[in-house]
Amino acid sequence: MDLKPTKPLSGFIELLPAQQRLFDECVSRMRNVLRISGYSRLDLPAIERAEVLTDKDNWDEIETQMFLFQKGDTKMGLRYDGTVGLSRFVAGHINELAFPFRVYQFARNYRGERPQRGRYREFYQLDIDVLGIQTLSVNYDAEIVATMSRMYKSIADIVGRVKVKIGNRRFWNAMFAYIGLDEKQSREAFVLIDKKDKLNDFVGALEEAIGAKNANLINSVFLNGYHSFLNKNDNLDAAINEMDNFMNLLSAMGIENAEIDVSIMRGHSYYTGIVFEFFSIDFPDLPAVGGGGRYEDLVSKFSKTKIVGVGASIGISRLLVALMESKQIDTSKFEAPIDVAVLIMGDNNAKYASGIVTKLQDENIPTVAYLDTDKKFKNQIEYANKIKAKFSVIIGDDEVKNQQISIKNMLTGEQQTLPVTDAIKLIKAA
Amino acid sequence: MDLKPTKPLSGFIELLPAQQRLFDECVSRMRNVLRISGYSRLDLPAIERAEVLTDKDNWDEIETQMFLFQKGDTKMGLRYDGTVGLSRFVAGHINELAFPFRVYQFARNYRGERPQRGRYREFYQLDIDVLGIQTLSVNYDAEIVATMSRMYKSIADIVGRVKVKIGNRRFWNAMFAYIGLDEKQSREAFVLIDKKDKLNDFVGALEEAIGAKNANLINSVFLNGYHSFLNKNDNLDAAINEMDNFMNLLSAMGIENAEIDVSIMRGHSYYTGIVFEFFSIDFPDLPAVGGGGRYEDLVSKFSKTKIVGVGASIGISRLLVALMESKQIDTSKFEAPIDVAVLIMGDNNAKYASGIVTKLQDENIPTVAYLDTDKKFKNQIEYANKIKAKFSVIIGDDEVKNQQISIKNMLTGEQQTLPVTDAIKLIKAA
Repeated sequence: MDLKPTKPLSGFIELLPAQQRLFDECVSRMRNVLRISGYSRLDLPAIERAEVLTDKDNWDEIETQMFLFQKGDTKMGLRYDGTVGLSRFVAGHINELAFPFRVYQFARNYRGERPQRGRYREFYQLDIDVLGIQTLSVNYDAEIVATMSRMYKSIADIVGRVKVKIGNRRFWNAMFAYIGLDEKQSREAFVLIDKKDKLNDFVGALEEAIGAKNANLINSVFLNGYHSFLNKNDNLDAAINEMDNFMNLLSAMGIENAEIDVSIMRGHSYYTGIVFEFFSIDFPDLPAVGGGGRYEDLVSKFSKTKIVGVGASIGISRLLVALMESKQIDTSKFEAPIDVAVLIMGDNNAKYASGIVTKLQDENIPTVAYLDTDKKFKNQIEYANKIKAKFSVIIGDDEVKNQQISIKNMLTGEQQTLPVTDAIKLIKAA
Repeated sequence: MDLKPTKPLSGFIELLPAQQRLFDECVSRMRNVLRISGYSRLDLPAIERAEVLTDKDNWDEIETQMFLFQKGDTKMGLRYDGTVGLSRFVAGHINELAFPFRVYQFARNYRGERPQRGRYREFYQLDIDVLGIQTLSVNYDAEIVATMSRMYKSIADIVGRVKVKIGNRRFWNAMFAYIGLDEKQSREAFVLIDKKDKLNDFVGALEEAIGAKNANLINSVFLNGYHSFLNKNDNLDAAINEMDNFMNLLSAMGIENAEIDVSIMRGHSYYTGIVFEFFSIDFPDLPAVGGGGRYEDLVSKFSKTKIVGVGASIGISRLLVALMESKQIDTSKFEAPIDVAVLIMGDNNAKYASGIVTKLQDENIPTVAYLDTDKKFKNQIEYANKIKAKFSVIIGDDEVKNQQISIKNMLTGEQQTLPVTDAIKLIKAA
């Protein structure tokens, strides 16, 4: 019989135990930040009705990008982001939730397109949102940026530090109106500003699109700073003050490495105000490692109640898995999760040894026993070495007779025989 | 425009925030037991090749039971249990793993069949396994039962206590051989013993299947205990000693509420030795809340290396969600995750208030701010009540001027104004 393939499908992630421990440790720390910050978790179904996932008019396009299937008469598919499910859930539970509703999702999402380098077809994303009915102060935008910053900071010893760049679409809307761009010109200017860092000749491209005079006005934002457009009109003043207040709040929240960069636009059409992107300081070649912004009308397809919000997301698989696979982050600290390996010389000693294991585990000491008690000591100590246990505890006839244990420090080789209560102190002190 | 549906697809679970917190708390405690017990987590893809999920000869049957889809030439589908992925993974990484390999999966699985009452189409299952190359001592079977028991014990204050019943297929194989049943009779006896508790006339059904003499011999196991078949032959003695040693080990591991019940069979054909099932003591109407047993040849479809193991699983969604939905377990302790709601009187005080929020959160005190600072005090305190905050902190002009905060105990109504450092002590003491 032919053997079946042992590799996962291309585009799917498979971590080894140490990699998984690193991943889980990062997720656990980020979730703790969210808990302390008052965000509730939602764990929504991975499968949604096709009509929820998409509007009919782009069905053909989206069919090649998603995992879709039919059961009976019902078309359904795997979610590609956290927003569709959140919109549906919030619309269905408006009266059961307290607004502002702080919510996060840590979940797998799916892309059905052909796998490409660095793009996964199944990936974890952490989405955080604050939702309000009708209105929501821009102060929450600052809170989201602060919460994101704290999440990154909580894992900085593992994946390095980040900085955040903050833009404001309201500023550009006010600016385009101030200099008199029409709708088409505004759209073109928007796209060029969004691509600014990638263009060889930003000003030249702007001149071609909106004329030299307008191009120079826009470029002067970058040359002289956005404050040079204070006191021109109320809309510009409001947008500029919004950014200044935003930075003041962030500073009061203890957030470092934040700066206004009005070239930050974030492509998606649903953002309407503050937008932001996080970049790695220690791995500057990475694309943005997270971002988000303000949006309006989250649930309009599900409910007549107007829900506005600010949201952000971290592509956790992309961040952690890519860095682990390229060996840029070190998994070695996660290779040795076991403090004690208990080795048992003869099955008649298994009962005593099992009691010792329980005592150690009850003290929160990660402990495993080698329970194939007929194996030679050589095999057993090999196992203790292979799992990188810090200590081996050896239980033979003498240890049982004297109600003691022999314990060996696997690093120094030092070995001693003593009561288990003393061994616990020794292990905890190590 | 018609609004889209807000309910999830039938058979899919959607928890409210307090329910989710209860669920997450249980999972977190169980995962901590597994960490201390030295189990590594695997988080395998939810999508596998169709040929991995099933053998071709039962494709038609399985197609109605699974979520399957095709991308390009590749047929694939959503996993229905943790075993197929584990087998594939272990076969592909034998040389990178240390055996005995203790592993767990906490993951969503999928059933594509029509939804039925109490059956979910998407559900969480916790699978734990210990795998060995070629052989693995039955001591590990006891360890798995002990680890399962500890996981249940860690959540007993939430979902009640469990007991475990342990059977042994080796005993029945030895017994059937001893009394001379042929293969067909053995199969029928096996099925009847498995259904024993559900049959009105167990002995009558046995008599019909294997004759009165054989039926009485088998029934005498239940009447007189399995020890009455000691000293008949080596195979029976070995199976009986295995159970006795097993119970001795469990007792050394500090496990209570365990008993041998040789009527426990677990239907699946792949079990070969010790089998066990966990039952709720406090909710006796529930079917088994977990179980498992010893199996051989886990990876034979993927590798020529013989991997044997013992595994168990807990249907976490079935256990927790069903009990929450029927209000048999109390979510009220999970309704109030926030210690402090910070209310801000006027946007000019937002900066000072944000500093206070950060100070409280840095002390690990779950804190949220009501950042719509233009809302009336009445609305803000209503929000603090709605989220069941233990304290409200009120920041107005006077508090900022005096660099203090006003804090209100939401239960007693007591209010005082004091420096934030004193407030932190007050909150921590509550």
